[in-house]
Amino acid sequence: MPGPGEFELIREYFTSRFQTGSRSGTADNGVELGIGDDCALLLPPAGKRLATSVDTLVADVHFPAGGDPYRIASRALRVNLSDLAAMNAEPLWFTLALTLPHSDPAWLEPFARGLAETAHEFGITLVGGDTTKGPLSITIQVTGACARPLRRDGASAGDIIYVSNQLGAAAAALPVVLGEVTVSPRQQQQAETAYYAPEPQFAVARAVEGYASAALDISDGLLADLGHICDASQLGAELNLDQLPVAVLAHSLQADAAVETALTGGDDYQLCFTVPARHRDAVQALQLPITPIGHLSEEPGIRCQWHGKPWQPRGTGYQHF
Amino acid sequence: MPGPGEFELIREYFTSRFQTGSRSGTADNGVELGIGDDCALLLPPAGKRLATSVDTLVADVHFPAGGDPYRIASRALRVNLSDLAAMNAEPLWFTLALTLPHSDPAWLEPFARGLAETAHEFGITLVGGDTTKGPLSITIQVTGACARPLRRDGASAGDIIYVSNQLGAAAAALPVVLGEVTVSPRQQQQAETAYYAPEPQFAVARAVEGYASAALDISDGLLADLGHICDASQLGAELNLDQLPVAVLAHSLQADAAVETALTGGDDYQLCFTVPARHRDAVQALQLPITPIGHLSEEPGIRCQWHGKPWQPRGTGYQHF
Repeated sequence: MPGPGEFELIREYFTSRFQTGSRSGTADNGVELGIGDDCALLLPPAGKRLATSVDTLVADVHFPAGGDPYRIASRALRVNLSDLAAMNAEPLWFTLALTLPHSDPAWLEPFARGLAETAHEFGITLVGGDTTKGPLSITIQVTGACARPLRRDGASAGDIIYVSNQLGAAAAALPVVLGEVTVSPRQQQQAETAYYAPEPQFAVARAVEGYASAALDISDGLLADLGHICDASQLGAELNLDQLPVAVLAHSLQADAAVETALTGGDDYQLCFTVPARHRDAVQALQLPITPIGHLSEEPGIRCQWHGKPWQPRGTGYQHF
Repeated sequence: MPGPGEFELIREYFTSRFQTGSRSGTADNGVELGIGDDCALLLPPAGKRLATSVDTLVADVHFPAGGDPYRIASRALRVNLSDLAAMNAEPLWFTLALTLPHSDPAWLEPFARGLAETAHEFGITLVGGDTTKGPLSITIQVTGACARPLRRDGASAGDIIYVSNQLGAAAAALPVVLGEVTVSPRQQQQAETAYYAPEPQFAVARAVEGYASAALDISDGLLADLGHICDASQLGAELNLDQLPVAVLAHSLQADAAVETALTGGDDYQLCFTVPARHRDAVQALQLPITPIGHLSEEPGIRCQWHGKPWQPRGTGYQHF
């Protein structure tokens, strides 16, 4: 049974669900004209920078092709929102470039619903897109307004390294999500939430905007992403693994390798940021869900101590090729 | 032989070639921070709208996978620039989401060069991207500044329909580009240019900004795209095919079906726009490469006359699914 043609498909699943703007004026988030013309027309907020980021999720590389379309859509948007959060930007607009092997309403309906509900939750507006025929992949570009950006390249030796919440949950969850291991229903649900519903760290970024010297989100694993902060500032790092906030899920699913998972596992989208030592007390007083795990140093490379001894991790993070 | 890892790949082929911005201030097109952080940081021009559009080109759906990577990159950017032109927006920034089966320097080098040279030609700045492993596809999002947008939905019955330059060249060229037919070296070159190097119609759009009631670029074929103008304004159209500017290439390669090709063939990226009859003389006086081909009417649907008789085209344009 052939699916609907492209234009009907776009109209049915996206335009109607995400309609914004009007002929006469502007709608929420400064959207003058949304989906359906050659371009969207947008009015950027006065006096702020725009922050923009794009990410592609390829089926069976970045998510299981057979996964729940609602959760896949939600995760795709959350992963992109995490880049806005890590830059300390407020969500405004996003576009969706969706490549599909065929136009299947049973897949598109929950996908569009997951996207719409996640967009609503974070106050971001779909302003355009493209649907093409081909192997399943999802490219989302997010744009936000940014008054005080948190860049990667502002750190100095001696700055304290913090991470938000816990690490390792999504990587520990992956074999469960992929159906490679069987766990209790409760663990199954925890695993799916850890993998599919990462929480962009807008609140933490906003709270530390006056103190942080550098920040990013941990998508490829702490060691790999902290390496980017080090590279951008030409520094190294000293980590105390006894302080590492390892996710309960990593302990329960991968007890033997929990620390390794927390260090090198991707997909958590927690914030990693650095703070000059003089701001330590002020940041502590914010009572955020953050943990100091070490400090930056002049010597290039990242060195780990565990139980008072040097420790060498096996991997360094997700490699895309 | 494994190619370079993702981060080296990005650095080598894109970051170095497209480096913009600086730690201390802003660079061209308001780029404060380009490739390499969680987000790009951009300063939009004051007092203008932003126009943005995204398009995905999938290998062997939208371009031949074995084509020249330089030309593929150039075409991918031109196709997106055409959406800015059709909206009457000036190019500012673009992002590239590139999915590749493997990291191959022999492909990436000419691809990056084609992208850089085309970006330079049109004054648009690469500000971010993502490279992922998977089936070859290219998603580009362009953003421009727009003072007087040309939308699809402003037309009225009686408005004259114009197209820029000629139609049908790219569709006629496709079998040549795909290697399905053999032609003279000169025709081969003309065909490759028609297909791979469409010219975004910035100059025409700018010239008619004070007169046009609606406009779009012809990507899926005149009938299909004019249908979008009609739908947006709840109108129909009457076309005189004797006036249709059929491309020489369509005549020389597909003489028997040249008019059909000009009506329904995609990929030309010429401008189709409408002008209220009272502006006819003013638009004529601009001496642009444009042709009036009919007018809008109250009756829904598009009707064609050829040699004084009604004529029914076989197809209506490219269907994506």
